[in-house]
Amino acid sequence: MASFFRSNVDAMAPYVPGEQAPPGTKIIKLNTNENPYPPSSQAMSVLQNIDSEYLRRYPDPYANEFRQAVSDVLGVPRDWIIVGNGSDEILNVLIRACSEGVRKIVYPMPTYVLYRTLGAMQPTETIEVSYGEDFKLPIEELVAANGAVTLIASPNSPDGHAVPIDDLRCLASRLEGVLAIDEAYVDFAEESALALLNEFDNVISLRTLSKGYSLAGLRLGFGIANPKILSGLFKVKDSYNIDAIACAVGEKAMRDQFYKNECCQKVKLNRTKLALSLQKLDFKVWESQANFLFVQPPNAKAEALYLELKQHGILVRYFKQPGLDDKLRITVGTDEQNQTLTDTLSNILYNCLSQT
Amino acid sequence: MASFFRSNVDAMAPYVPGEQAPPGTKIIKLNTNENPYPPSSQAMSVLQNIDSEYLRRYPDPYANEFRQAVSDVLGVPRDWIIVGNGSDEILNVLIRACSEGVRKIVYPMPTYVLYRTLGAMQPTETIEVSYGEDFKLPIEELVAANGAVTLIASPNSPDGHAVPIDDLRCLASRLEGVLAIDEAYVDFAEESALALLNEFDNVISLRTLSKGYSLAGLRLGFGIANPKILSGLFKVKDSYNIDAIACAVGEKAMRDQFYKNECCQKVKLNRTKLALSLQKLDFKVWESQANFLFVQPPNAKAEALYLELKQHGILVRYFKQPGLDDKLRITVGTDEQNQTLTDTLSNILYNCLSQT
Repeated sequence: MASFFRSNVDAMAPYVPGEQAPPGTKIIKLNTNENPYPPSSQAMSVLQNIDSEYLRRYPDPYANEFRQAVSDVLGVPRDWIIVGNGSDEILNVLIRACSEGVRKIVYPMPTYVLYRTLGAMQPTETIEVSYGEDFKLPIEELVAANGAVTLIASPNSPDGHAVPIDDLRCLASRLEGVLAIDEAYVDFAEESALALLNEFDNVISLRTLSKGYSLAGLRLGFGIANPKILSGLFKVKDSYNIDAIACAVGEKAMRDQFYKNECCQKVKLNRTKLALSLQKLDFKVWESQANFLFVQPPNAKAEALYLELKQHGILVRYFKQPGLDDKLRITVGTDEQNQTLTDTLSNILYNCLSQT
Repeated sequence: MASFFRSNVDAMAPYVPGEQAPPGTKIIKLNTNENPYPPSSQAMSVLQNIDSEYLRRYPDPYANEFRQAVSDVLGVPRDWIIVGNGSDEILNVLIRACSEGVRKIVYPMPTYVLYRTLGAMQPTETIEVSYGEDFKLPIEELVAANGAVTLIASPNSPDGHAVPIDDLRCLASRLEGVLAIDEAYVDFAEESALALLNEFDNVISLRTLSKGYSLAGLRLGFGIANPKILSGLFKVKDSYNIDAIACAVGEKAMRDQFYKNECCQKVKLNRTKLALSLQKLDFKVWESQANFLFVQPPNAKAEALYLELKQHGILVRYFKQPGLDDKLRITVGTDEQNQTLTDTLSNILYNCLSQT
């Protein structure tokens, strides 16, 4: 045995999460699409009353308390819901349950970089279909690739576009395998793909509390699909995957829709204002239905700008990849954070211009 | 595509966790090896002071705060530690990272039933070697099976025996693949296998806070091994697998060794007393270094006894499998719970006897 690991694992590159500064560090963090507003105070208050008995015992394997809240809020049956440690775990379980050999993994590029990492673990081919400049869903190529799992993020990262529901409908109707619609950013978008779940038995919608609900540190997400899909996922997920605290906090956060909607509304408003400010600075700004903006700086020197911003205590996301390396992904912050960002950008660009 | 899933997943049976009654239910729960004493109050008090900023942001991908506590307490370098959602997640990641095709999974039977479930997911053979009546480690057969991963629980479930360190040493020296020593119950045992980690680069020790630390509901466990093993596991685990709250609570629980040791000492004392009481009722009792006892009722009608106890509000574990179905696994409870159990057993057995 030459290595402890499978050849796939030896060959794969680890996923590199966005940089994190310790809480309390004086930094404006606009690189990992966290919500700039705090989580629901109703959800936080749950922590004051966690019975130690609740931690002494094993948790509910299905996180039913949280599932019931999702069921009540979204109007889907409880047994159509699977809960995970963030939607990342559901993605992981789904890809693991479905793909090997001729059962391939397919997605359009560019998209959430985790798909590539998860694909690399599986003993199968991962097919990346190019979106092209206009980010129109390449339906024919996706269908032709015939994936056991086809992954579509909508809104998509890094650019923020939402895939039209009719395109997703068309794709679902033509795929034999599972169509996973990764709706991590749906709380900032105009519509969701929920309606498709009743129309097609091969569609799963993936959601998270990390973005709209400001609970990235809690690790809580869920998938919605018919029980035919969920049966296989329940076999593969760890039996006690959700801890008792996340279940209880998540339940209250889910039921506090008023607060979540208020925060997301503010983010959407800030997004519009930030886009305008960046356009005034001659940035090209892609239309976004997420809590971030994909932008091309006027001089296209994205990496230099990313490093310069970091020097000024502002983190944004730079992807060192062909096609992306002249652009930046900037999380929409509070009004004040966005103002500091645009002021800083303005200064940096002015200095550059005055030096040339 | 006939199914959404891989053939392994279609074929496998889901893992069935032990029955759980909702917290607050009037039941004596001696079926899933939870610690009968509450978690550390120092650990619980962390929940009063969780900053919402801590949940708004993504958590530390390595759970370094908790890792540092483990490092300080066990005297192992921090980069020799990987943290998981219970040791179940580390088992899952390890098996997934190592096994496929000729890279097999091997363990002695009977043991923790999750190994079979995790093995069934992988596209490889799972080899189960019989322990035999005396529970002596079948070293020759285990070596001959040549696993990419060999799993040894010590103390072992369901019987509670600890594998002698010299047997583990011998096995480690003869295996080419990874030897995983599942030490979930080590806090109730006389010694640990920690010393082997310095001797062999193919050994990983798996630990959990679910048993000794009374934190089954928190989902926190860890693996200790040299970075050569951990590098592959870090690629396969979800990047943000540990939530910020579990990390903070776990850190304090780990540092409160005095309380943990006190609880485990009480459990060990109760174990001795319970074993004596059961022997007086003519049960055969296996020697245990865990927080449970493996017993054979005098009439060997284990299933009937399990059902009868359930009627009386006492849950114990019954395994409906050849070789185990005439025995029960009983978690060691508080003195009072153990007293109720033995009183109830005495009544049931007396009634049976008087009816025959």
